[in-house]
Amino acid sequence: MKKPDIYRVALDERSYDIHLQSGSLNKLGAAMRDLFPHAERCIIISNTVVEPLYLNGVKHSLEASSWQVFEHIVEDGEHFKTVDTWSKIMDALMDARLSRNEPIVALGGGVVGDMSGFAAACYRRGIPFVQVPTTLLAQVDSSVGGKTAVSHPHGKNMIGAFYQPKLVWIDPDVLQTLAPNQLRAGLAEVIKYGAIWDADFFNQIERDAQQLLALDTAVVNQVILASCRYKAEIVMQDETEQGARALLNLGHTFGHAIESMTHYTTYLHGEGVAIGMCMAARLSEQLGYAPKGTEKSMVKALQALKLPVNPPEFTAIQWLDAMGHDKKNVGSRIRYVLLKKIGEAFIAEDVKNQDIEILIASYT
Amino acid sequence: MKKPDIYRVALDERSYDIHLQSGSLNKLGAAMRDLFPHAERCIIISNTVVEPLYLNGVKHSLEASSWQVFEHIVEDGEHFKTVDTWSKIMDALMDARLSRNEPIVALGGGVVGDMSGFAAACYRRGIPFVQVPTTLLAQVDSSVGGKTAVSHPHGKNMIGAFYQPKLVWIDPDVLQTLAPNQLRAGLAEVIKYGAIWDADFFNQIERDAQQLLALDTAVVNQVILASCRYKAEIVMQDETEQGARALLNLGHTFGHAIESMTHYTTYLHGEGVAIGMCMAARLSEQLGYAPKGTEKSMVKALQALKLPVNPPEFTAIQWLDAMGHDKKNVGSRIRYVLLKKIGEAFIAEDVKNQDIEILIASYT
Repeated sequence: MKKPDIYRVALDERSYDIHLQSGSLNKLGAAMRDLFPHAERCIIISNTVVEPLYLNGVKHSLEASSWQVFEHIVEDGEHFKTVDTWSKIMDALMDARLSRNEPIVALGGGVVGDMSGFAAACYRRGIPFVQVPTTLLAQVDSSVGGKTAVSHPHGKNMIGAFYQPKLVWIDPDVLQTLAPNQLRAGLAEVIKYGAIWDADFFNQIERDAQQLLALDTAVVNQVILASCRYKAEIVMQDETEQGARALLNLGHTFGHAIESMTHYTTYLHGEGVAIGMCMAARLSEQLGYAPKGTEKSMVKALQALKLPVNPPEFTAIQWLDAMGHDKKNVGSRIRYVLLKKIGEAFIAEDVKNQDIEILIASYT
Repeated sequence: MKKPDIYRVALDERSYDIHLQSGSLNKLGAAMRDLFPHAERCIIISNTVVEPLYLNGVKHSLEASSWQVFEHIVEDGEHFKTVDTWSKIMDALMDARLSRNEPIVALGGGVVGDMSGFAAACYRRGIPFVQVPTTLLAQVDSSVGGKTAVSHPHGKNMIGAFYQPKLVWIDPDVLQTLAPNQLRAGLAEVIKYGAIWDADFFNQIERDAQQLLALDTAVVNQVILASCRYKAEIVMQDETEQGARALLNLGHTFGHAIESMTHYTTYLHGEGVAIGMCMAARLSEQLGYAPKGTEKSMVKALQALKLPVNPPEFTAIQWLDAMGHDKKNVGSRIRYVLLKKIGEAFIAEDVKNQDIEILIASYT
């Protein structure tokens, strides 16, 4: 087995490693035993899709390292990322009688990771948790950085905490069983890093689209590692999103509105973000921030990754209302992440509702 | 009006003032305007007992300083300190569309303060909150230090966060409307500080019992200030209860069990703590840690404050089961705060279930 790539997220006493290695899933038990030498119990939180594929392997690995393993399975999908599901996780933690030093293992995608992290943040006012992301989106984005949350009927991720994991354990081999639309959704977050900071990386992803979609191991592993580094670097600069970290929300204000208006049933998160990035690019051109052709480059790259690029039809009022509850908004203003060009993003505080009306009208 | 006493809780960027002044309740608006110059909205969380007495005064004070004020009223009592009540607070925050920089005002006792603080910790991953404690217990203990939580059917305060307020605003005049049993319950937490750290303070409280129960202004104000200092000092040493802060749980492992076994309907929190401190004192003597007479001193002082000192009748198994879910327990061991003498407490890790059986048997 190839040597692992290990990247340290340095956040004082909240620091942790991202451990990336093909075939490492069933080696988690020993790593966790090293990290928590005095803990006896842990609980795996997973979902109905991941459980039949990977739960037993992880469980046996943990038991082989003397862990007493509890488990709790949630339904799959954004639709279930609710206070109610989280509350049932809290019940499971109570039933397992976990102590303050005993960890949660989040085995699944972004929804499982976000909810498990929020459960870890709240149970006994905070216990450790370990991210074992099984989707590309979770591996390149949501498992790193400590944003945990559940959604509210009026807005995505509105209830949560900044709470860092103690370890992120990535095995890219699990992507072999990932549904193709889930794979593509993850690639939207990958290309986002390029759009914000690095035009070369953006171009590379577009160029390597076929290999990525075919899960070429070397290319995929390199892209995951690069993505984790982009994410970790910005988190180290701005852990609680007081400033620069907000750039990571490129495409997310529109994207969250798309997910919310379609009741989390039509688009995966990454698909909403893909469309949202196209809209942000068009708005950047419309307002004269970005040169003509910026939107076209964005659309072309996302289409190479077989991602959607056109927004669903809603009125401007519906869009504004859905975005008004996005939690990144200060006061009554909506903040947008816009582009100066591919590879350079910024926060626009002065976008007017009228600008959004023009944008939405341009799609009809 | 007398000059305010202001005590600074120094916790780096989480620092805040405790502001203590008779008659200050209706001056809150101006102070909050200074503290949050850019915020437009705030929401007052209060309960059905406090609302008719103090809500309008606070609201007018805020409106006079250009605040747009929302409000949300919860039922009164520990019984309602649940995920469900908290979830309804989250709905109210969503409806008010509070931004990340707009505060919650917790106007009430410990239950309102703990739940509002936990809501502030979670809404948009954290917004500011201000404690305006209206019970003695909240003024001398729970409003300071950032322990926020709701309870789970299987254990008190099991779901929460360490999350500091931005201001604690204490007006002792509001104690004039406090029910006598609530006043006495608060005095249990006051005398606790003496039992843990300061025999002179312990003796002073016993000596001044009559004046305290009669709400003599000078004595009460001095006692609140002294209590806030004890609390703040230990919080500054150990914000997240990794060590010394656990001493504040004197009487609480038994006390929480008493509250839980009686379904939060029979004893106020402070009453449970009073009984719990007597049990801790008796256990300390039983195990040879404290000299004979320690329990007697404890009982005498609490009786002077008209607090209960005898535990309700339950079997040792019921006690152990109720305490097994107390969140201060590491692994499967139950940790007890015991006394070496009045004025000196310590954490005992090695109390055996058998010792508890003997203790419980001694009461029958």
